[in-house]
Amino acid sequence: MDEIITLDYGSGGKKTARLIDELLLPAFSNPALDALGDGALIRGAEQLAFSTDSFVVDPIFFPGGDIGKLAVCGTVNDLAVCGAEPKYLSCAFIIEEGLALSDLRRIVDSIRTQCEALGVAVVTGDTKVVEKGRGDKIYINTAGIGFVKHPGLSPKNLQAGDAVIVSGTVGDHGTAVMLARSGMMQGDISSDCAALSPLCAAVLAVSDGVRVLRDPTRGGVATTLNEFVEGSSLGIVIDEAAVPVRPQVRSACDLLGLDPLYCANEGKLLAVVAAEDADKVLAAMRESAEGQDAAVIGRVTADYPGKLVMQTAFGGRRILQKLPGAQLPRIC
Amino acid sequence: MDEIITLDYGSGGKKTARLIDELLLPAFSNPALDALGDGALIRGAEQLAFSTDSFVVDPIFFPGGDIGKLAVCGTVNDLAVCGAEPKYLSCAFIIEEGLALSDLRRIVDSIRTQCEALGVAVVTGDTKVVEKGRGDKIYINTAGIGFVKHPGLSPKNLQAGDAVIVSGTVGDHGTAVMLARSGMMQGDISSDCAALSPLCAAVLAVSDGVRVLRDPTRGGVATTLNEFVEGSSLGIVIDEAAVPVRPQVRSACDLLGLDPLYCANEGKLLAVVAAEDADKVLAAMRESAEGQDAAVIGRVTADYPGKLVMQTAFGGRRILQKLPGAQLPRIC
Repeated sequence: MDEIITLDYGSGGKKTARLIDELLLPAFSNPALDALGDGALIRGAEQLAFSTDSFVVDPIFFPGGDIGKLAVCGTVNDLAVCGAEPKYLSCAFIIEEGLALSDLRRIVDSIRTQCEALGVAVVTGDTKVVEKGRGDKIYINTAGIGFVKHPGLSPKNLQAGDAVIVSGTVGDHGTAVMLARSGMMQGDISSDCAALSPLCAAVLAVSDGVRVLRDPTRGGVATTLNEFVEGSSLGIVIDEAAVPVRPQVRSACDLLGLDPLYCANEGKLLAVVAAEDADKVLAAMRESAEGQDAAVIGRVTADYPGKLVMQTAFGGRRILQKLPGAQLPRIC
Repeated sequence: MDEIITLDYGSGGKKTARLIDELLLPAFSNPALDALGDGALIRGAEQLAFSTDSFVVDPIFFPGGDIGKLAVCGTVNDLAVCGAEPKYLSCAFIIEEGLALSDLRRIVDSIRTQCEALGVAVVTGDTKVVEKGRGDKIYINTAGIGFVKHPGLSPKNLQAGDAVIVSGTVGDHGTAVMLARSGMMQGDISSDCAALSPLCAAVLAVSDGVRVLRDPTRGGVATTLNEFVEGSSLGIVIDEAAVPVRPQVRSACDLLGLDPLYCANEGKLLAVVAAEDADKVLAAMRESAEGQDAAVIGRVTADYPGKLVMQTAFGGRRILQKLPGAQLPRIC
């Protein structure tokens, strides 16, 4: 193959076939994919979770991850928080002509590595190539299918007194990507990009009192918690001092004019659980590397219907809205 | 909402929420989507077909269709040719900032209209917005899930003597898009963009001798037939005079330097069927508007292993290769 991707690679002709045969199929090989039908034929289940995300992150390589790892983890996480076991992925590339083949290889390797670790298979895919200036190196869409093991998770289950738990420090991904994009020193800040399916399974194994799980990506923890209570007769109060934030992330956020509570995370889990199950859920999270800094950060309350309220470190209370605007474009 | 899409609409914040709440959810409303989980929860089945495609067609509106109709039909067709009944779609937009909201509405309407006609539901989605010059108006990825009703369709089933049938005139989509892009007069040439699931079901209902079905999109009929026999001990001979091509498409192809056999189709079905079933499959196709011009265009043969050969109108025979290069970039 050439050293860079040219428009020919998207034509559906011989170069497309070489890209698929020499790079993509060997990377993702599995029986459903190797059959090379127009669609993959896969074993089904009673209830399925189905999710999709396009990934347009800039830059495509950043400390702690890359667009390929993100594309797997992002969709796997959306399935996992539905109470599903992620099983199958589709993977579709929109490549800007001129992308170095070595970069594409690195991204494909990253996708394969993640999938292998998670027992997830890429079973169908697509590749398009667009002209220079009609894309930005590479965009990736993944869609995923998971088998639902724990149906019924929903913000509708919230009850006053429930504990709000986050699985670790917030704001790492958003800060890492913004620093990488700006060209500023990154110190030891790196993305938390990780698959949450093991953590979700661990939490659901120890507690029947899990109300809802969610990964707070775009818009961050504050936006996700707002979504939980929007239009509800219940609210959530979080304790500013209890929210785990790495000191270097806090400093970087100050510098960049960001708020860690609104920064995207790509490997953090928000769980609302029955108050009496909070300790065992925390303990289960802390058994894994991803959950070591897990903390109860707040409670569900009847006092502020539909609102997310923050108890500040200085004793005041203020309402946290959803992310109002373009804080972090192309963060994932 | 504003009249054009700005980066704010992709931030995961309030404007993203408005885009989703005011435009997308009302358009696609169904129970699985309306639950608004990170993934959709859907009823499963024993065996599933799963497929994805990204659509980057330029221009986004063209005679006979638009990128939205294409995004539904393209994935529905990939499922249908697997012998599956298409059921669920994901729909992910990558929007270039500056897209007119009226254009987005028109595309969303087109998606909804197609889905309603086909009994297919968009159950999950995603929206990203990229800066000007990092996309081209809008790219759409759809992934689809179908329930397999007729397992086992595969080019591996081909037998010498089988009939090769195409459901209608070839080259319409590719020619229509190329003419629209060039700004040349289009006469009455328009894309054949259409869903093939009814046609596939009709064919499979009348014949147990269907070997394989495929929609010849990028690379056209010649590339798809090459894929059928690649590495096989069988070949295919097609009769140039039997291939239906609209006269105006033939003229336009001459003008543009294209070959209709390599032009993308978006609403045509290639079927290889047992010789004795050819007549009833033809009859079944011709009962629908999409299949009125259906024709037997060739036969499977042991004479040319692995090759596609064309019997020319002048009595000669020549080998048709796969599409070698970038004949038609961004045709779908």
